[in-house]
Parts: sequence; C-alpha cells; structure tokens
Amino acid sequence: MKTDVQIAQEAKMLYIDKIAEQLGIEKEDLFQYGHYMAKIEPVVYERLKDKKDGKLVLVTAISPTPAGEGKTTVNIGLSMGLNKIGKKAISALREPSLGPSFGVKGGAAGGGYAQVVPMTNINLHFTGDFHAITAANNLIAAMLDNHIHQGNEQQIDVRRVVWKRVLDMNDRALRQIVVGLGGVSNGYPREDGFDITVASEIMAILCLSNSLEEFKEKVSNIVIAYRRDKSPVFVKDINAQGAVTVLMKDAILPNLVQTLENTPAILHGGPFANIAHGCNSILATKYALKLADYTVTEAGFGADLGAEKFFDIKCRMGNLHPNAVVIVATIRALKHHGGVTKEDYDKENLDALRKGFENLKKHMENVAKFGVPSVVAINQFPTDTEGEIKLLKELVEKEGRKCILSQVFAKGGEGAVDLAKEVVRVCEEEESNFKPLYDVNDTIENKITTIAKEIYGAKDVIFTKEAKNSIKRIVENGMDKVPVCMAKTQYSLSDDPKLLGAPKDFELTVRNVRISNGAGFVVALTGDIMTMPGLPKVPAANNIDIKEDGEIVGLF
Amino acid sequence: MKTDVQIAQEAKMLYIDKIAEQLGIEKEDLFQYGHYMAKIEPVVYERLKDKKDGKLVLVTAISPTPAGEGKTTVNIGLSMGLNKIGKKAISALREPSLGPSFGVKGGAAGGGYAQVVPMTNINLHFTGDFHAITAANNLIAAMLDNHIHQGNEQQIDVRRVVWKRVLDMNDRALRQIVVGLGGVSNGYPREDGFDITVASEIMAILCLSNSLEEFKEKVSNIVIAYRRDKSPVFVKDINAQGAVTVLMKDAILPNLVQTLENTPAILHGGPFANIAHGCNSILATKYALKLADYTVTEAGFGADLGAEKFFDIKCRMGNLHPNAVVIVATIRALKHHGGVTKEDYDKENLDALRKGFENLKKHMENVAKFGVPSVVAINQFPTDTEGEIKLLKELVEKEGRKCILSQVFAKGGEGAVDLAKEVVRVCEEEESNFKPLYDVNDTIENKITTIAKEIYGAKDVIFTKEAKNSIKRIVENGMDKVPVCMAKTQYSLSDDPKLLGAPKDFELTVRNVRISNGAGFVVALTGDIMTMPGLPKVPAANNIDIKEDGEIVGLF
Repeated sequence: MKTDVQIAQEAKMLYIDKIAEQLGIEKEDLFQYGHYMAKIEPVVYERLKDKKDGKLVLVTAISPTPAGEGKTTVNIGLSMGLNKIGKKAISALREPSLGPSFGVKGGAAGGGYAQVVPMTNINLHFTGDFHAITAANNLIAAMLDNHIHQGNEQQIDVRRVVWKRVLDMNDRALRQIVVGLGGVSNGYPREDGFDITVASEIMAILCLSNSLEEFKEKVSNIVIAYRRDKSPVFVKDINAQGAVTVLMKDAILPNLVQTLENTPAILHGGPFANIAHGCNSILATKYALKLADYTVTEAGFGADLGAEKFFDIKCRMGNLHPNAVVIVATIRALKHHGGVTKEDYDKENLDALRKGFENLKKHMENVAKFGVPSVVAINQFPTDTEGEIKLLKELVEKEGRKCILSQVFAKGGEGAVDLAKEVVRVCEEEESNFKPLYDVNDTIENKITTIAKEIYGAKDVIFTKEAKNSIKRIVENGMDKVPVCMAKTQYSLSDDPKLLGAPKDFELTVRNVRISNGAGFVVALTGDIMTMPGLPKVPAANNIDIKEDGEIVGLF
Repeated sequence: MKTDVQIAQEAKMLYIDKIAEQLGIEKEDLFQYGHYMAKIEPVVYERLKDKKDGKLVLVTAISPTPAGEGKTTVNIGLSMGLNKIGKKAISALREPSLGPSFGVKGGAAGGGYAQVVPMTNINLHFTGDFHAITAANNLIAAMLDNHIHQGNEQQIDVRRVVWKRVLDMNDRALRQIVVGLGGVSNGYPREDGFDITVASEIMAILCLSNSLEEFKEKVSNIVIAYRRDKSPVFVKDINAQGAVTVLMKDAILPNLVQTLENTPAILHGGPFANIAHGCNSILATKYALKLADYTVTEAGFGADLGAEKFFDIKCRMGNLHPNAVVIVATIRALKHHGGVTKEDYDKENLDALRKGFENLKKHMENVAKFGVPSVVAINQFPTDTEGEIKLLKELVEKEGRKCILSQVFAKGGEGAVDLAKEVVRVCEEEESNFKPLYDVNDTIENKITTIAKEIYGAKDVIFTKEAKNSIKRIVENGMDKVPVCMAKTQYSLSDDPKLLGAPKDFELTVRNVRISNGAGFVVALTGDIMTMPGLPKVPAANNIDIKEDGEIVGLF
C-alpha cells in the first residue's frame, strides 16, 4: 500500500469554493487561504440560524494503547461513508498543533485513504489560528508584566502570577524560567514558564465560545494572577480583552477543507485533552450542524476523558444534543488491554481479546449513562482473524449494541458504508436522551467523585491537602459552579497508566484543582501533566526538507 | 479632514484578483488570503524572468525628527501619481510588525489619502509571514537546546549560545531571562533572551534571498553558538535548515495588496533598520520590477542608514540597479534640524530652514556618491509658508537637483503628479551609474571607516577593544568579506542623537561588531540597540476593541 504522503499528494482536490457550493455556501462568503482552505464567514451561520440542526455523531474510542485505534481515521472515513449512502456529512475535527510536528512523529490528520487535505498546509501554519492564539496569549502576559512594571495599580503579587506565556513548539528549556532580569528597565524578576499553545486558556475559550462576544466576555474573566490578599486579578483588570479579541477575530471562524473523497471537513481549534476538554470548537460543530445532515465530530483520548468532557463541558456549554456515539476499537488494542504485548499483536488470542473487551464494555456502559445510543466500530487490521472478529461481534452484541467492521484506512468511504448505515439507523430509529452526568451546582468534590465512580469505576477519591486548599479558595471566590475538567492519564480508566482493561477497586487521587475561570471549568489534576513537551534525541525536524521541485519530505 | 481610519474604511477596494489582472497575473497564480490580499506564486516570476526590468526608484528621507517626514506616505502617493500619468507602478514596502501595534502608536501603512489597504488585516496577522519567522527562529532555538540536552555532540559551550528566541511582541520582561531551570529533564540552565521577531536573522535572510534555495543555504550558515575553542556552530551543524525552510515556504512569497486608489502594492518582509538592513525583500522588489514600469521601494530611517544599506547590502546581494532616489523632507523637520522645537514648527523661520537644510544637502551628496540621480520631495504641510517653500526650492536647485512639492496626504495620487513627472524625467533622461560605496573584500575596519567618513561626515572612527577582538575573531573564521550593516542612531548623521543638521569633526565609536553570517553581513554597533521594545504606561492595546457590528477601534 502507498504511504499516507503519497496518497495525500495524489489526491484530486476540488477548489474549496466547489466544496462550499455542495454545502450551499457562496464563494463570496468564504475567506480563502489559497485554493483549498477557507474560513466560513459568520453571515453563513446567520442565514441558517433558524434551520433545523442535522444529526450529531461523536466518534470516540477505547483507552488508547501503543497498538493504535485510528479514531480520527474512522471519523473521516465515516463522513465519507455517509456521503456514499446519500447523506450530506461533514467531519468536524481539531486542528493539528505545529510544534509537535517537528518532534516525535511528524504531523497528521487521519491516515491511509481517510485523510483530510491539503495535508502539508494543515500541518504547517494552516489558517494561522494557533499563531493568533500565541499572540493573544502573550499579549496578556506582556500587558501583565508591563502593568507591574508601570506601577502595579492592581497590586499584583509577582509570586502569584499564574498566566504563562506560550509557544507552538516543543521546547523543554522554556518550561521553567526566570524573566525580568537585567535591572530596573526590564521589570521585576520573577519565576515563569512557557506552555505549548494548545494548553493556553485562550485555546479552550476559542473552542467553548458560541460567538465573538461570548469569547470576549470569557477572556475578560480569565484569572491571571492573585494579589497579596489572594483575591484574583482578571484580564479585565488590565483591560486586555478588547485587543485579544481583535487578534482573534479571524481565528474564531471555522476552517473548511476536504477529505480525500471531497467530503467537506471543518477543522477548528485543538485544546489539550487533559488540562482542557480536547474537542474542536463549538462554533465548528454548530456551523456543521446547520450545513449538513450529519456532523461527525471527535474528542481527545478515550471515551472516559474525551466523551465525558464532550458531553459535560462542550455539549453543555454549546447546548448541543448528540444523537449517537461511535466507539472505535481495534482487535490489537483490545488484546493489549488483555495483556498482550507488541510482539504478539498479530497472533490470534481469543482469551486476551475477551479479557481486553472489558475496557470497551466499560466505555459502552459509560456512553449509555449519558443517554446516547452507541455503535462500536472495529478499525480492521489485515492480521485480525475471523475467529477474533466473530468473538468480538458476539461480545458487543451481548451488550445490546452493534459491532461494525471499518476498512477506511485501506478503502476510504467505501470501507465505512456498513458503519454509516448503522449510524443512520441509530440516529433515525433510536432516541437520544442526552443529559450531562452531574449538576454544575453540586460541589467540586461531588462532581469529581461522580465522574470517578460512574465513569472510571473508582472505589473512592482522595483529595490531597493541596487540592482541598485550592477547592476552598475557588469556592471563596465563587468560581465553583462550573463543570469539572479531569486531567488524568489517558492510558487507563484509573489514574495509574499501567492498569489496563477495566480496573476496579482503585482509589483516584486528586493532587490539585485549578480554575480556568475564562474557559469556565475547574481542572482536577490527578497526576503530573506535561504542558510543554520536549524534542526527542532525533527530532522529526532533522529529516524534514523541501526539494528543489518543491516536494516536502519528512513532515508526516 | 477625515482620520486615517475613516479614509481606510471608506476605501473602494477592488478584489485582489482584479489588481493582479492589471499586472497580467492570473487568479490561478495567486494564493489568496481573503478577497483583498494574496501571495504571488513563483510561476509568475518564472514566466517573466527574461522580460526587461522596469525602473527602480528608492524613496528615502532626511534624518528623522519628531516633526515627521512621511516617507511611506510619499512612497505610496508617488506610486499612485505615476499611475495617474500613465505609468504602471508598484509600491514595494515593508510589512508592519504586529507586536508594536499594541504599544505606543498603533499600526500604520501610510496615512491620509496615501495608504495601503486592507489596513486592519495588514496591521494584524496579514498573511502570517512574521508568525512563520517566529516559528522558524524558535525551532532553531528549541533544536539547539535539545542538542545540548541530548548529549551535545557538537560540544556547544552553553555560555556562548548567541541564537536568541523571538516573539512579535513588545515584552521587556523577556529581554534577559534564564532558561532550562527545574532540573535534569528541562535541560541546562543558561542565560538567554527574546528579541522582537523583526530582529531575527531569519527576517534579514528572508529579505536578502533571491530564491528559496538561497534562503535555505543562508539559513544553514547562521552562527548559533560557539564551542569552548571558540569555533562557530552553524544551523547546519544541528541540521535545522530543511525544517526551517519548509516553515518558510509560503512566507517567502511576496504579498500583493493595493493602495486607496487601487494601485498594486507589494508588502514583504520588514527587518530592523539598525542591526539589519531595513528594506523590503529582494524578491518583492524583483517581482515588482518584472510586473511594472516603475517600482517605488523604501528603506528604513534616513538616507545615511536606509539608502546606504539599500545600496550596499540589498542592491549588491540582489544585483539591483536603482534608477533614481527620492529624498523626502518636510519644512518642519528641516527647521527642527535648524534648531526649532515643537512649539515653533508652525512659525515661519527662514534662518532655521537654511541651517536645517544642511542635513538634506548632506543626504543629497551622499546619494550622488552611489551614482544615482535624486529628486527632493517636500511633503507639504498646510503651515508651510510661501517664503519657506521658495527658499527651500532655491537651496535644493543650487545643488543641481529639483525640489518638488507633494500633497499626497491630503490629495492622494493627484498630489504627486508633479513628483511623478520629475521622477519619470530623471529615470528617462538621466543616467544612473550605480555602484556600491566600498569593496566587500576590503577589511572590516576600512569598510566601516569609509561609510563613517563618506556618508556620515565623521572625522575618524574609534574601535573599542571589544570591537577589535570581535573583528579579529570574525577574520579568523573567514567571515569578514561581506558588507557592513551599521547600527547607529537614526536621529543624527553622527552616533550622537543630539547632533542635528550635518555635524562635522565628530568621531564615530564602534563599540562592537557582530556577525550575521546567514544574512551575509557584519553588524557594527555604535550604541545600545534595543532589540526588544517594551510597552508604555498606557499601551495602545488598552484602547483597542471590536464593537458588536464588527468595527475595530483603536488599532491605528
């Protein structure tokens, strides 16, 4: 089979105005970035705002493993499969981050015959959204330090500045730094650090805003520091929200591209899936719902994190009503959850599959708790045996849901026709009674405990002293009546990455709780979360190059 | 009169493909950014490469004063004036930097009825060039620190890292920092600092490359650090040039926009005018020369810095042959050079004008030394008296050149018809015998001394011990046979900003000399050069906002 790059380069792309035309969008209402990328102007949504929404389908997955699941690939394939059976569909995805493209693995947006294109541009600067976020984030930082330097009217405690700078780069040297050295004219020395851009609260806000006005309102409520008396200092206290919003006026518009089969795809936003909620923007999803019969969207990591945050944070804030959930698994990955290691992924092992199925089963049960019907999609590998496929189908069907094979990597949309049919059947025949898991007005402790017990299967939750103190402060500041964003390892349903399958009787430890008051959630930290990655010994960047004929190599 | 913003907002812009059509560029060969901005694809230049170049006109100015000269405004006005008299003209300008827009003055690109549009986008992210430079610059930094962290094969001396990170932001807290704190996993602690993006050597290289291949070659030769034995470490030693070039593949393409009168304008690149050469890109100028009869280009600061570097660095590296130079002055500014202060700018003062004329005269003489004929343009103010205008015309004509009034701020192209006619006359009737001032193969000391004596009027040049040592090192490394880029105050022909007019008998002190081996010049530092600005007490950002109807206020 051809490589992803070869396939992407051979794609017969349509001009983006032709893709838009399929959706009833006039060329005039696009802000084009070259021939194949465009932002959709707000007037398009304005015109359609009274139209009935299409169906909303979330593609999520089992707990990720080194064996690979292919969640994005199935998402893209499903949108193409829906088109094949006559349903107008849009894939709504996150934008890839530029920085990590130079790190371990290079860029990506799907794979095989289920990719979005133009791949190179999407993996480089795309439409500049992440650069705008970087600039907006760092403008707040510069204004904050300038405020302190110019007299500190707000009496900011330089030891309690919590707003960090960001770069879209894997750069470990910037994790922990001291700024403001060199004397009076350079301001006050203080400890600081850079996060990667996707970890910026501006990114989370971009993805959780229903309009530019709401975006500005949320930005103005970001907590950037505390005073000596521990009262919070907001962005509005240094009056940066207007300039930040101006910087973001284009970035907030959804980006239209296409799949290899010319199905429209909207890529917009890409918040971290641990300290943030890991979903594409509410606006992208809302635009897609107006423009298509079926919107196929995604959420980061496995369903315990991705789907839960999609439901409890994104759907709640966007007033979205998901109709179905596709849970992606591979037989290899389930065997991994059943104890098989890499060397043996390709060998039939029914016992391990049965054991690993517990992970899938738990995610299926979890999705049901939100009242949304699900479909299991098996992203098929050539090494999957007939016996394994048969067993898995039986196991899934015993739980009352359908298990559909998907071959989108090798066959594109054709490989997802069965899956598309089942998704349509579920959306048309089964009722979704979506409801969030918890009430935002409950206490932070209760909200966390509910998620831990109901979704993760924890026996109990332990709050460290630090976490308890933080919660106390958040409550005192009246910032606790918001959803909880869990920062937990994605590799296990528990907070221990080594516990595969569906662990039971474990205790979840909440080490600290932070407020993202602009985005509108509290973050519960259950482990060390790395918000600035580093480069590996041999970075992908070493092999990236452009040939004389313009061909780019090594990028993905 | 209306404000710049009002005028810009009332502009009747043409779609950018219509502007391109005027130049014979097909829509297909544009990479559009919305309806009004586009990059020009290399195929356009390829097709025209055997066509004869149009005329090249540099617009420069007297030594800048607080009274204002309006160099960019005259540049834009002249291009419109040339169009008015039937000459196809393009204005080739630098792109504005995003960061400083939030600082003291807000953004800008011309003024009054001589502006380029769409002003808001140009002053915000434009086509993302500066963001690409930021990413490329910081990728080198991340790879450098990663190289040290991962074993330091190149034996980089962490005390001798000279490559700094950049942000397009006025952020004084980042001028001097310590990175790599927090233990082993974050790398080696070392002193570091951020410059503003326009000060990045990547920016200088972008502007001095004739092709993407040459860009990559130059990037690979950047000196990023030294070893313990003081031998230089290059970008190619950490193999970052390929990835950097991929990041810059779009940024290197010239950007097409338009003036208020729909004259094509190419805005591309914007290097610092002190530690770099302060001109728009060679590629922008070369594209314009193929596309128009007249290319009107600019250079930063007054003619002592801007024009000298334009000739000795840009024209030399781009093999460009300028046909004429327009030296812009205002009567107010000349009176300032003659000793008048702000309160009295509006009062007639023939003596001060006569005295201040010495500054203009010196710049006229300097331009003549490069063999290029000049025209003096007086950017007229309503308060200029008839007596002053008459005197100035006499003074200029006594030096053998014409002095033409320009009223482009109030009248647009109509206000530059006389200027355009004189520029055309000079280009058609007078021969340009352009030659650079010095031989690159001369010693660094001699090259600097030649510029100081011939252009600045210095009596002598003093090299500090530090400068001498640096020169010795540069010579040892065989990097001295390149042009010199002078970093000197723009406010005086001397290195003392307080010496107005045309100072004589002064000594110029060279405090240090640095190599920009990628860009291909040595930088002679004659004072403290600020490469990371700070924000003022009340930053412009405090007043920038977007209204509910989408109108942006406070940006310029």
